[in-house]
This record gives sequence, structure tokens and C-alpha cells, in this order.
Amino acid sequence: MTLPIALDAMGGDFAPGEIVAGARRAVDELGLNVILVGVPELLGDPRGLEVVACSEVIAMDDDPGVSVRKKKDSSLVRAAELVRDNKASAMVSAGNTGATMASALLRMGRLPGVIRPCIATPIPRPNATPMLLVDAGANAECKPEMLVQFAQMASTYVRAHYGVDSPKVGLLSIGEESSKGTPLVKETNQLLAAMSSLNFVGNVEGRDLPAGGTDQGALDVVVCDGFVGNVVLKFYEAVTPMIVGLIQKSCGIEPATLARSLGQLDYSEHGGAPLLGVRGVSIISHGKSSPRAIMNAIKVGVRAVDSGMNNLMTERLAASEQKHQTAEAS
Amino acid sequence: MTLPIALDAMGGDFAPGEIVAGARRAVDELGLNVILVGVPELLGDPRGLEVVACSEVIAMDDDPGVSVRKKKDSSLVRAAELVRDNKASAMVSAGNTGATMASALLRMGRLPGVIRPCIATPIPRPNATPMLLVDAGANAECKPEMLVQFAQMASTYVRAHYGVDSPKVGLLSIGEESSKGTPLVKETNQLLAAMSSLNFVGNVEGRDLPAGGTDQGALDVVVCDGFVGNVVLKFYEAVTPMIVGLIQKSCGIEPATLARSLGQLDYSEHGGAPLLGVRGVSIISHGKSSPRAIMNAIKVGVRAVDSGMNNLMTERLAASEQKHQTAEAS
Repeated sequence: MTLPIALDAMGGDFAPGEIVAGARRAVDELGLNVILVGVPELLGDPRGLEVVACSEVIAMDDDPGVSVRKKKDSSLVRAAELVRDNKASAMVSAGNTGATMASALLRMGRLPGVIRPCIATPIPRPNATPMLLVDAGANAECKPEMLVQFAQMASTYVRAHYGVDSPKVGLLSIGEESSKGTPLVKETNQLLAAMSSLNFVGNVEGRDLPAGGTDQGALDVVVCDGFVGNVVLKFYEAVTPMIVGLIQKSCGIEPATLARSLGQLDYSEHGGAPLLGVRGVSIISHGKSSPRAIMNAIKVGVRAVDSGMNNLMTERLAASEQKHQTAEAS
Repeated sequence: MTLPIALDAMGGDFAPGEIVAGARRAVDELGLNVILVGVPELLGDPRGLEVVACSEVIAMDDDPGVSVRKKKDSSLVRAAELVRDNKASAMVSAGNTGATMASALLRMGRLPGVIRPCIATPIPRPNATPMLLVDAGANAECKPEMLVQFAQMASTYVRAHYGVDSPKVGLLSIGEESSKGTPLVKETNQLLAAMSSLNFVGNVEGRDLPAGGTDQGALDVVVCDGFVGNVVLKFYEAVTPMIVGLIQKSCGIEPATLARSLGQLDYSEHGGAPLLGVRGVSIISHGKSSPRAIMNAIKVGVRAVDSGMNNLMTERLAASEQKHQTAEAS
């Protein structure tokens, strides 16, 4: 029997109401197997949904490290333990991102060879599979070897998850020339360019992100450190409503019409960002997730499990490590 | 007599045609005093505009350092020399940004005490003076002391240029807490928080940029390193057309109507970004500058000269340096 998805019912700006509603949609509409992890007296009536009870909640603004250490009976920590103990195949949370990472990392551990896990956020784009931004905020500081692993893991994910045969990988910089950027970017460029197993297209710029591509064609993966990734992502989330608001105000278009025309950019379609590099599947959803976004995040979790992405990533990292050692020995 | 503005007639995607047209508008409509620096046989008919002839052009994709060293008779280098030699009060260029910086820095030098000049790009926002993003791309790598100077120089500029009494300064990070971010950001936060002469509001996030402010109110200056600043700026320039394109396509709104509703975000209103910290005034315009943008950039140059911003910045940096030394001695 397939293992269920453990859903943190207490995480998110609209938890637990919208989260429970999302679980119900996943069960009713998609026939998926979901366990709610939450505080029973706060959950309302979960009507037939399976519940794993806990007594604590990690708040959106709790310190990630401290809260995961202290709140051992929180929904987040318990959800991660269900995956670790093989009682769930994946965890999904719309709660505190740092604490989600910490609980996944501390309870599940890393995949063999992984230096640091990263958040891979799908950026929706018109008429195409999303572009994956890694790292979208897990690691403010990175070393070149970490960025190389992010590229490998994200490339594997895009192939396994979206069926893109040879995902195009770009490195975010301030000029297309390999000589441009910080020492981190320059060194990473050299390492990526030397990897025959990656379809590395070179440096890309901020202007290539919204279009989802360069003159050379669509990008599938954009690699950057988690500081830049987080700034860009939060900027993007805020700039669209600002522009839409201005247009709405002066052109008198109905909000619903505008929403429809931007539907292709709706993050809730994609449901969540996988945390790549942990020994298990952990999907990080947007804090403002709707029931639909939660349903889709659960679907993303199921697909991540079914695609065997973690085995594929482990094999890929091991192969490149072996190649590296062979090259050094020869 | 007021000195003229030296305009690099050869720099920009639409040079020299649109640049010369912009000079003419500045002269005719605003009564400003402009010298064109350009290759006479390429300028067409400058009809009555004063021309300083040169023989070389630095291309948009030339290496900045190499081109400024080798092309000594280029329009960019000659424009910088006119300022150095007190024959022009400011230079304006829509050409190669790196080469504009290099020529200004090498020919004019730095203001006393300045570690590194920075690009201060005005981000238009609805119903308010623009928000200044420093550094928008001059320095991919920064030290905390540099970011502190960027904050001081930008704050002085906003006060002198836009008449904002006590400009609010934010530090771009990945969380509002002072403990969040890279070591660079954390250390800069401490230094800025200790400065009584700055209205420092603390860390801000990517989501605060489009709105031009945080919950605490509008921001006037956002400080970051030039790598992040460049990525955000280029991203912003590309994301707006992408969103507008989607809306236009599905709602059938006239492009002109949409353009009007976004007029408040039009960078050409603000004309150009000053290079802060050089011994002279150098205004960097967008590569795609229209005649209107060039006219406005010339106006920005005139105002930067008239406001005495360089003296104000020098005094401010000297005062804080003295305070620093007094504190160390005591």
C-alpha cells in the first residue's frame, strides 16, 4: 500500500482551516492518501480524515533552530518524524520555512554526499513548465561546491518531475560573460562548465528570469545563493500585485478578468517547493496557501515520491563524485 | 556663467540619433546648456548645438577597464575630462555603464574619504519621490564600510535632490530581524544602527521594494551590494513588460492605455542614476534612453550640480570619520 502524505495542519497564515480544506480536496478530488498532523482541539471537525495528534505549534515567526529543538511535539517535527519512521512518504507544510527545513534536516538527515539541502522554487511562466530557482532561501551563504550540487539536484528534479529531457541550467550573475560576478559566481561558472552531465548554458541575468529564458531559449533551472534567491522571489511576489493594482485602478478592469489573464503565473498551480537533498520528501508551500495550493502541494509530494527523485539524485551525485576522484587520481 | 553639461552623444542603444534629439529638447524646452561629445561625421547635423569632437567610441559590450585605457579619444573619456578640467559641470551617458564608471573614476577621482563610488538608481513609485537603490551594480563585492558610505551618500543625495528631510534608509536582507542575512548584512546592520546621523529603519526584504516601503512607511533609500542590486534592477525591468504583455493579450487593452496607467513607473521620468562618490557629477542613463529620458538625465545632472551634493557628501563623510576617530581615541 502506498504511504500517505503527512500534512502539517497547523502551518500557514490560514491554518488550520484552509489547510484542512486542501487535504479534503486532495482526498476527494485526487484520491490521494493524506494524514493531518495537528492539535485536535484546533482542527475543527476533520470528518473522516486521518489525524496524528500533537500538542504544539511552531509559529510563523518562531526562531527555526530553537523552535524545532524545543517544540518536540509540534506538528512540523511530528510530520518530519512520520517520514523518517516510514509512516508517511512525504511531508507538506505551509508554515515557518526555516523550521520546516530544520525539522526535515534534523529528523530525516541529508542524502549521501549532499553538503547542504536547498529550496527549489518553481517560477511559473506562460505556456511552459516552470523554471526552478535554486536556492530560493535555505542558505544565505554558499560555496561553489554547494551551488554545483544545487544545479545537479534541480536538474535531476526537473527531469524526473516535469519530464524535461535535458534541463537547461543557468547561473545567475550580473553579465553573461563568465568573467562577470562575484568570486563565488566565477568559480561556480568554471565548475559547471566542466560538467559534461549538465546542460549548462552559462551565466544569466536578472532580466532572463521573468521571461524564463535567454536568447538561447528557455531556462529550466536558475542557480544562485539563497540570499539572492530569496530577495528575487519576494520581490517577484510583491511586484506583480503592485503592477496589477495600478492597471486595475486606471483601466477599470475587473479583478477577476485580470486574475484570469495572469492565471499562468499563479504559484498555487504548482503548490510547493521541494527541499532538495534531504533523506525524504519535504514540500514547502507558500504561507498564504489556499486549499487549492495545498491540494497541489500534496500532489507534488506524491509525484516526488513516485518519480524516485531522491534515488536519482543520490546516483547522480555519487557518479560525479567518483568521476572527480578518478580525475584526481589519474 | 554656468558650465554646460557634457553629453556622451555616442553612448546608448539608440545613439547618436536619440541622444542628440534629447540634447536638443534640453536646450529648447528647458533652456539648459549642453555640449555634445561625439564623432562629428556620425552626429548628423547638430544644428547649433555645441560639439566637442572625438574620434573613438566605446561600444556597449567593450570591456570597461580596457576600453577606457585604450580609447583615450572616446566620447566617454573626453566627457569625463571636460568635467575634470572644469569645462563642464557634469557628464551624462547612456552608454556602457562599466566604462562610464571607469572613465569618471579614472579622470575625476574619488571624493575625499570615499572607499568606492556606487550607482544610485531611482526606482519610480506611485505618488511619491523615487526610492534610491544603492549600489545598483558598480561593486559586485562589498565590505560593510562601503555599504555604510553608500547609505550616507544616498541619504545626502535624496535630501539634496528631492528635498526629503530625513530620508528613511533600509538594508536589503532576507528577514527583518537584524540577525538575518549574510555576515556582510549583519555587520552592516550593526554599523548603520549605531549612526545617529542616519534615519535607519533596519532590514527590509525583497517584498518591500516594489511597494517602496515597509509597514513602517515609505523607504527613501535601500542599500545592498552591487550584485544583488543589479540582479533586482534587471529583473524589475523585465518583469513589468512580461506582466503587461500577458494582460494586454488577454484583456485586449490598448498598449497606449496600459502605458498611461504605468506612467508613474516610467524610469525615463527620472532620466538617470548618479554615480555617487566621484569628484564631479556623472549621470548614468538607461541604454534604451529616449530623447525624453536624455533630457531628464541632463536635468538631473544640473540639479545635482546646483544642489552641491558633492560638498554635502564630503562634509558628511568627514564628520562621521571624525566622530569615529574621537570615539576610538576616548
